[in-house]
Amino acid sequence: MYRTHTCGELRMEHVGKQVTLAGWVQRVRKMGSLTFVDLRDRYGITQLVASDQDSKELNDIVASLGREYVIQAKGVVEERSSKNAKMDTGDIELRLMQVNILNKSVTPPFTIEDNSDGGEDIRAQYRYLDLRRNPLRKAIELRHKMGIEARKYLSSIGFLEIETPFLIKSTPEGARDFVVPSRMNPGQFYALPQSPQTFKQLLMVAGYDKYFQIVRCFRDEDLRADRQPEFTQIDCEMSFVEREDILQTFEGMIKHMFKTILGKEFNEPFLRMSYADAMEYYGCDKPDIRFGMKMHTITSLVQGAGFSVFDNAQYVGAIAAPGCADYSRKQLDALTEWVKRPQIGAAGLVYIKWGADGIKSSVDKFFSPEKVKEIALAAEAKEGDLVLILCGAKKKMQAALGALRLEMGARLGYRDNSVYAPLWVTDFPLLEWDDQTSRFYAMHHPFTAPKPEDMDKFYSNKKEDLELVNANAYDFVLNGTEVGGGSIRIHDSNVQERMFEVLGMTKEQAESRFGFIINAFKFGAPPHGGLAFGFDRFCALFGGQETIRDYIAFPKNNQGRDVMLDAPSGIDDVQMDELFIKSTAPVK
Amino acid sequence: MYRTHTCGELRMEHVGKQVTLAGWVQRVRKMGSLTFVDLRDRYGITQLVASDQDSKELNDIVASLGREYVIQAKGVVEERSSKNAKMDTGDIELRLMQVNILNKSVTPPFTIEDNSDGGEDIRAQYRYLDLRRNPLRKAIELRHKMGIEARKYLSSIGFLEIETPFLIKSTPEGARDFVVPSRMNPGQFYALPQSPQTFKQLLMVAGYDKYFQIVRCFRDEDLRADRQPEFTQIDCEMSFVEREDILQTFEGMIKHMFKTILGKEFNEPFLRMSYADAMEYYGCDKPDIRFGMKMHTITSLVQGAGFSVFDNAQYVGAIAAPGCADYSRKQLDALTEWVKRPQIGAAGLVYIKWGADGIKSSVDKFFSPEKVKEIALAAEAKEGDLVLILCGAKKKMQAALGALRLEMGARLGYRDNSVYAPLWVTDFPLLEWDDQTSRFYAMHHPFTAPKPEDMDKFYSNKKEDLELVNANAYDFVLNGTEVGGGSIRIHDSNVQERMFEVLGMTKEQAESRFGFIINAFKFGAPPHGGLAFGFDRFCALFGGQETIRDYIAFPKNNQGRDVMLDAPSGIDDVQMDELFIKSTAPVK
Repeated sequence: MYRTHTCGELRMEHVGKQVTLAGWVQRVRKMGSLTFVDLRDRYGITQLVASDQDSKELNDIVASLGREYVIQAKGVVEERSSKNAKMDTGDIELRLMQVNILNKSVTPPFTIEDNSDGGEDIRAQYRYLDLRRNPLRKAIELRHKMGIEARKYLSSIGFLEIETPFLIKSTPEGARDFVVPSRMNPGQFYALPQSPQTFKQLLMVAGYDKYFQIVRCFRDEDLRADRQPEFTQIDCEMSFVEREDILQTFEGMIKHMFKTILGKEFNEPFLRMSYADAMEYYGCDKPDIRFGMKMHTITSLVQGAGFSVFDNAQYVGAIAAPGCADYSRKQLDALTEWVKRPQIGAAGLVYIKWGADGIKSSVDKFFSPEKVKEIALAAEAKEGDLVLILCGAKKKMQAALGALRLEMGARLGYRDNSVYAPLWVTDFPLLEWDDQTSRFYAMHHPFTAPKPEDMDKFYSNKKEDLELVNANAYDFVLNGTEVGGGSIRIHDSNVQERMFEVLGMTKEQAESRFGFIINAFKFGAPPHGGLAFGFDRFCALFGGQETIRDYIAFPKNNQGRDVMLDAPSGIDDVQMDELFIKSTAPVK
Repeated sequence: MYRTHTCGELRMEHVGKQVTLAGWVQRVRKMGSLTFVDLRDRYGITQLVASDQDSKELNDIVASLGREYVIQAKGVVEERSSKNAKMDTGDIELRLMQVNILNKSVTPPFTIEDNSDGGEDIRAQYRYLDLRRNPLRKAIELRHKMGIEARKYLSSIGFLEIETPFLIKSTPEGARDFVVPSRMNPGQFYALPQSPQTFKQLLMVAGYDKYFQIVRCFRDEDLRADRQPEFTQIDCEMSFVEREDILQTFEGMIKHMFKTILGKEFNEPFLRMSYADAMEYYGCDKPDIRFGMKMHTITSLVQGAGFSVFDNAQYVGAIAAPGCADYSRKQLDALTEWVKRPQIGAAGLVYIKWGADGIKSSVDKFFSPEKVKEIALAAEAKEGDLVLILCGAKKKMQAALGALRLEMGARLGYRDNSVYAPLWVTDFPLLEWDDQTSRFYAMHHPFTAPKPEDMDKFYSNKKEDLELVNANAYDFVLNGTEVGGGSIRIHDSNVQERMFEVLGMTKEQAESRFGFIINAFKFGAPPHGGLAFGFDRFCALFGGQETIRDYIAFPKNNQGRDVMLDAPSGIDDVQMDELFIKSTAPVK
């Protein structure tokens, strides 16, 4: 027994007791005849104190302590003369009797404080030290709680957590697989799962009607910021359900998590929005509905007035930024530059300022004051607002206006991370046409069912018809981030075969990649559907953060490297020989 | 909503209610004017009934149903005229109003019954059908419960579940790593973790003093029966603890699981046994203590009587098989053949039969009746028992006699799988000498601490001294199976460096393989230790089975293949090129 209590535990009620603590030295301060040591562990910080009048031995040890030394401290709990209301243990201190140094520490390369002086790279290299900092500790603790509560809820309503294999078969479709050479099967490879999709569907065929798993998934993608080659999903599937059953079930889970973890109660059903409306009013399929400032299509309203920029545009859309009528010329110029950046890609920005002194716009030449007001009203503007208008190709400008909306929302403080606005987005298109390869791709994945009412179009051979087929799919969106997504699956093997056909796979290709699941569906597959939540991102959002890296104990960097481990790394020739592979990488 | 109730739910209280069920057709029987359908889902079976007097449409559909068809059945719950007490739903039946076929099924290749007519290979290929059978369903449900209860208990006492990475660094020591070529880092490889050992120790350095994770691990070993290349551990680690704290903590978890899952209460502390005693009395490091029949060393007792076989033996050991004094000559001959098989390797078997009519032995020529009785008593025999004696090289014969003990225990019905005898085995040797490579290997792993009292020997350069160093390690053994193992770890970087030295690693080798952990230990590593449970085996034992395969939803066969998926399999040359590898496997 190294300790009787933790460093976050002692209170006034312990005064007079002899206790033993263990932890890390956060700080040592000499003040007059007293020496104070802040001792830290996962649970908090307790102040230790030694006096010059204590033994020389004790004072010598205390004087020798450095930052991050691991010590065991024995002493008596005393009431502090000057209490610290900011600390849970701030009413007391430990009057030292004995200190044992359990382990010394060399000086850490950065400070172990809430705001460290270490840069991102050095903190990644010494991740085990970065993890000692409070913000990361809280993130890791939050993640634990979220896993516990998700499991508790799903288990309480009859879900079984079932583990699926990690060494599976490579079925390249969508992202690239990581592969694992097999020593016992020369020339053959396992793949690491991009998701347990096929397994959970096989479990439905097997009769496990409520499945979930909190599970690692792997995608060998070129990493964008905040993507990880390995990530965790709350993966779920149900049988004998329709879309409504699934949305109800997981809305229940999400509400349970909000309540138990954040203390937030959602008594109303979550809002729902079709993909079409999301694109129309928010310019993206994952609207941030913490604030309004909806997009409005004003194409027909503004065309025919002789302003060629509008007249020639496929789309003209507007948003009204509340209270921004007093934006200066300089601010408007900066905003114009912002929308003209290649990431946004607008040709320019038209504005209407609705000030107390009247309405002014950058297109007053072309429109009467009444017309300008009509446009402003169409954007739901009121006095004091700034109307921002973009025009051009429809898809591109919807996305641009959506991005501008988010930017203005952020500037106006509408994107408060302690406010949560959950949303279901439904009715996605089933297929996406790719001009380059001249074929359709599954927007979700090839097991997603078309909506029943679109079945005729699904069997049409016309591209135009197929483009209109909606999927029985849904996404869970939180504060503008897609946190979950899923669909009702195809459970009829004929429909599944048609899907493979639509995706341009020959029977042989479909058979070789998905033969086992096509075959399984011949033995009584129940109607089923499910969804998966991105657990890393879910945790980050609950933690009020936008980046996931702090919510993963040992993340990889943007090059897919673990800089702490220095992985990946070279392996022996012997090991390669055993695996029947040879490296073809250029020798450095 | 496809159903209002499950097939395991309806009781007398539902009589008169109109309900809808959905599930699989287990069986259809025509009896006179009635047709009975057994409808099955995960929750049970409900009997459906249609009468000739019902509509032709209904009767036609019911007549068309085949095994494993998926149907939706609407009807009214009625009390059965002849009840079936063996079924939970046996008091009622569903008088059919309407049947919808949701999906047809081709005839399954084996029967979906508790005892299927399918062989192992065909059931593996159609695993999703095998999983429909009750024994597998129960196994999967048990596994879910065990995960839930383990998590619940550990979480309730302050443990955090922290996920560690799967794409890590290859550190070949012990078993072979599976490796994953990196596309973004040409010529480099990740490894899949054999266990999260180093990560959990880094988490201790990071201050997360109670860590656990139910986590997949990977070992590329030649597969013995009942080993899987991927398997699951309950992996645990604690800081500021000594051995006793760890044993107490996890004994608490195990008792909680026994109680909540099997309804078995263990009020006494689990037995503990040293490795030395385990070898001496049970001939192995994982004694099955569901029964006695302990081994006794009788070397000095029997030597010097002129029986050269004993006189020349390094070791003579005996067990007493209760009530077996009436073994026939034929039975004894068969037992002799059994011990002479190469797996056991004894040269022969000496016996003493202590019958009601006196004591007889196969060595009466060499020993007086008094001496024979003395030997029998040394083996703790009593009247009615059969004493079995093996002699030869000590280690080999201890193992042989241990195997014979288990065999006799099984024959005598002492190895009842519904009886549980938990045990801690402690004080293992730290090191194992390997003659072939002429070096020491870590018996547990290179982070295991020597026992404090053996520190002098640990720093000795003599092989004899090092062989005597005990590890601060412990195993959890249940019914003769090692279910868990762990140790107090080295937390002093000097001791760790000495360990690498003892294992024959140069500083450079140690640095390149374990540099990150050696380095981490310089920044204030707390005293720590932990253990890991083999979750698959734990589940199998709780289920009363010895094989783990039924407790894994999608296991691999002895060649490491998933025969359902047909994995591993070949991959495209394009994929290999992207990964900078080439196959060197002989072309078939």
